[in-house]
Amino acid sequence: MADFVQNLPGALAWVVGDAPAARDALAKFSWKSPAVVVKVLDSVLRGIAQVAFGNNPISGLLILIGLFVGNVMSGLGAVVCSLTSVFVAKLLCWQDDAIAAGHSNFNAVLIGTVSTALYPLVFHTPLSPAVWGYIIVAAMFTVCVMAGLGRILEGHNIPAYTLPFNIAISTTFLCMKAAGFGEEASPAPSEEPDTGLQWDQVFLGTLLSAGHVWAVESVACSVLVLLGLFIFSPTLTLVSYLGATLGTLTGLVVSSAPYTLVYHGIWGYNGFLAAGSIAFFMAPTPRVILVAAINAVFATYLQAALIPVYAANGLPVFTFPFCLASVLFLATAMAMGPSTLRVTSPSFPELHLVQYNQKSRIVATKDNRDGDETTTEPMV
Amino acid sequence: MADFVQNLPGALAWVVGDAPAARDALAKFSWKSPAVVVKVLDSVLRGIAQVAFGNNPISGLLILIGLFVGNVMSGLGAVVCSLTSVFVAKLLCWQDDAIAAGHSNFNAVLIGTVSTALYPLVFHTPLSPAVWGYIIVAAMFTVCVMAGLGRILEGHNIPAYTLPFNIAISTTFLCMKAAGFGEEASPAPSEEPDTGLQWDQVFLGTLLSAGHVWAVESVACSVLVLLGLFIFSPTLTLVSYLGATLGTLTGLVVSSAPYTLVYHGIWGYNGFLAAGSIAFFMAPTPRVILVAAINAVFATYLQAALIPVYAANGLPVFTFPFCLASVLFLATAMAMGPSTLRVTSPSFPELHLVQYNQKSRIVATKDNRDGDETTTEPMV
Amino acid sequence: MADFVQNLPGALAWVVGDAPAARDALAKFSWKSPAVVVKVLDSVLRGIAQVAFGNNPISGLLILIGLFVGNVMSGLGAVVCSLTSVFVAKLLCWQDDAIAAGHSNFNAVLIGTVSTALYPLVFHTPLSPAVWGYIIVAAMFTVCVMAGLGRILEGHNIPAYTLPFNIAISTTFLCMKAAGFGEEASPAPSEEPDTGLQWDQVFLGTLLSAGHVWAVESVACSVLVLLGLFIFSPTLTLVSYLGATLGTLTGLVVSSAPYTLVYHGIWGYNGFLAAGSIAFFMAPTPRVILVAAINAVFATYLQAALIPVYAANGLPVFTFPFCLASVLFLATAMAMGPSTLRVTSPSFPELHLVQYNQKSRIVATKDNRDGDETTTEPMV
Repeated sequence: MADFVQNLPGALAWVVGDAPAARDALAKFSWKSPAVVVKVLDSVLRGIAQVAFGNNPISGLLILIGLFVGNVMSGLGAVVCSLTSVFVAKLLCWQDDAIAAGHSNFNAVLIGTVSTALYPLVFHTPLSPAVWGYIIVAAMFTVCVMAGLGRILEGHNIPAYTLPFNIAISTTFLCMKAAGFGEEASPAPSEEPDTGLQWDQVFLGTLLSAGHVWAVESVACSVLVLLGLFIFSPTLTLVSYLGATLGTLTGLVVSSAPYTLVYHGIWGYNGFLAAGSIAFFMAPTPRVILVAAINAVFATYLQAALIPVYAANGLPVFTFPFCLASVLFLATAMAMGPSTLRVTSPSFPELHLVQYNQKSRIVATKDNRDGDETTTEPMV
Repeated sequence: MADFVQNLPGALAWVVGDAPAARDALAKFSWKSPAVVVKVLDSVLRGIAQVAFGNNPISGLLILIGLFVGNVMSGLGAVVCSLTSVFVAKLLCWQDDAIAAGHSNFNAVLIGTVSTALYPLVFHTPLSPAVWGYIIVAAMFTVCVMAGLGRILEGHNIPAYTLPFNIAISTTFLCMKAAGFGEEASPAPSEEPDTGLQWDQVFLGTLLSAGHVWAVESVACSVLVLLGLFIFSPTLTLVSYLGATLGTLTGLVVSSAPYTLVYHGIWGYNGFLAAGSIAFFMAPTPRVILVAAINAVFATYLQAALIPVYAANGLPVFTFPFCLASVLFLATAMAMGPSTLRVTSPSFPELHLVQYNQKSRIVATKDNRDGDETTTEPMV
Repeated sequence: MADFVQNLPGALAWVVGDAPAARDALAKFSWKSPAVVVKVLDSVLRGIAQVAFGNNPISGLLILIGLFVGNVMSGLGAVVCSLTSVFVAKLLCWQDDAIAAGHSNFNAVLIGTVSTALYPLVFHTPLSPAVWGYIIVAAMFTVCVMAGLGRILEGHNIPAYTLPFNIAISTTFLCMKAAGFGEEASPAPSEEPDTGLQWDQVFLGTLLSAGHVWAVESVACSVLVLLGLFIFSPTLTLVSYLGATLGTLTGLVVSSAPYTLVYHGIWGYNGFLAAGSIAFFMAPTPRVILVAAINAVFATYLQAALIPVYAANGLPVFTFPFCLASVLFLATAMAMGPSTLRVTSPSFPELHLVQYNQKSRIVATKDNRDGDETTTEPMV
């Protein structure tokens, strides 16, 4: 099994995990060769899946199809903003392998999908060409902020997650308000009747959460997201869905009836991302998955806490609850065990676990040879 | 004197300072031996005093008695949340000596005392079993957040103070609001008459400040707090009380008549903690105590500044002003002198000072031997 | 040219750049000699120019004249707060060269100029002796916060900019509100007629931006600022003015008609500082200037975004948008190229560029000798 994961056989290496065969094949071509079209396409597709930590072009393709199925504008936004971000990343001399893995794009992907989906709801007017202008500028900003914030946080061995997206979209939405976009809408008075807790709708909510990561509400989109991530990593998919479930259930505790938003998947997307973030950046041992689960609950707590704070300025919370929780809890997970738990060169979680176990075995063997007992670095 | 502090004689080593004899005796027993009951008790009591930087079980016992005298629910909350946090810390593999010193508990202690005291005031309803559920979950979160935030801040050689408590309780209070807890209360219109500044009441305010660190307003509790801390460290107690006094006086400058809250000790608790935090983590030289005093004033300024910001979301400021000020001013104190000023293995301030003077003497001797003048590392 | 910049000839070394002859001459005198008067004067004048990264006493003198011309109180505030800050810095053992370069003062300078200019506007009452008391305390705080925050951020190789000023003035203004200062003023209903976009007024706005860095609106002041900075560094002056222009133009995109504030220079001062901050702390290569330009736009975006957030507490945004943007974008600029791009011992940008080119040449030569191609460290 360990051998299988480390050396994906034949065609599988082109398709599953982080598709290492595809990556290596494309790395041989220069950005100035005609293969640049395929390189950019690969980077764009990987970036779409990177939003949920997937580094696989086929995952990205399935999710992109899901976006178009759920909301054509979000699909379009993802493509336009991705292309913009690859261009800016080249202009700012990002490293080739970071661009190839979609690291320069995934914040811009969210700018594309989330702003197109939420602008009409927040501003009560349809998208216009001028709004697309602001969206593209915001996508450009994410690339700059990602480089800077990534550098600051890497001093603490913590990734910037989608903080650049949150900074850029919050700023841009507030700027558009200041520039007079949108219309004052009288808040809808439609008080929905409380029909009691419907567990089948709660289950539907856990499923819809997956699409809400990209701000798209569609069962088809969510299924394609889960399918796409499954190709990248079954472990990540299961832990992320566990997070969505815990988040949705937590939503019942931190909101009040009627639970319409729970049923629509609004309370699960931060948990989905929060659980996935721990399971991706740490070798997914049982205790790491425990921390991932607690993080999903905490991120949902933060979501409830931040909603009124953001609403004071007329903004939704985007994925900021996930980012804030996961910065803290990744540090918690790192404090909890040996430093080898933290993934240094990310591929996909199954391989991370194999590599972690190998390193632990080497340490154990060495310790035995020295006549000592196996020791693990203690916490805190 | 230095020798006395370094080798506390006989029974004193069980009682004063950080009670090293008790600590060492308990460290010999495993968490799986029957002595676990005493170990947990010791950890719980030390954690109660650690809120104000005291690491001594008798200090903790005196303060716990004070909490019960002042507010039974706060005493109960401290015990329940402490036990919860020790359990979670073991589950997350915290280091034994950190648990033994109460580091895993003190944020949970505040969750227990502050939420039980302030919930009825903020939500205008009495405590209920459901509220206790939220309180216990918040106590669990503090242990996780402490591990993560502690790790991030230790990169800057700064402790997390009670930031985990502030994060957990603010989040939890906002979640309870979102879940429909509490009742809208019309703000009390009882405009108190301005009876002029009463200096005896101001003095009472400085005393009551000590109990307000745990959100308990009671002269008896405050006296027990000061007595308890005095056993741990007279220096710390004096500097903390100086901070409470400066904070209370600053309260006269940053609020307006009638000064009812000043008389109730509400303006002194951030100064109490702020001054103590500098005097505990730095060797308490005269210049360090000057910075501690400025920090007490600054923390009280921040308290006045943050009250309307927090109130916009219906929250009190908890101990966040102290945390924010002390993160900055501990860095200021570190920038101010030789690196040996910063305490590396905390025991109690009198011993810190002895150890600092010894190190300085060694450096001086060595410098003299080299024919140089005594030099201290310069600031900034 | 490189040689000219590195060894400023004769009298020029006393006047232009960072006036190295003056600096070295004064460094020879002790703070206890009678020359202390000249040392303090030099430090005060350099600190006034340091607000916009100028380290030159003649720059500072020209700007100080500009302040007095534009607003006598601001000029007075700059002097009083500077003297206060030098005194506190000595008390806290700041290093001599940091004090000499005005690093301990420039935040206090802004306290002096901005609070005197904005207090009457925010509080709707004239300055009083009590207000001067708060101002001087705020100036003292900046020195402490600068030492602490500077130490924390230097771990990330990022300066604290004017964050200490922003922290101290926001806190102080909120405290003065809490202490009952000022009067409620009904917001002026004078709806100005929208007279269409006037490009000559936009140009005037770019010019007025320079003075608004010190919160002084006066063409004469702005001209003296630009002249003063030009003596220190033509490159810095041009890039800063470019930033002011970009900021002012961005103001047209992130605010709505009538564009009165654009014409008054309110939208350009964050861009002025943001562009200058990158061009000063990084060797000003073309790509660094590109990042400086993007930063000017981003800082102005943040200005628009933060105005309603700050206004919720009755505060203007001060220079916080510039600080926040520049912390991020300096990290972006650092991630973008070789580590030698980051200036380690600041003098003035022309010399920074010469030194950077020399280092690059050495690396290139060495690489050639080793038979390798010239390599630059990659980004991110």
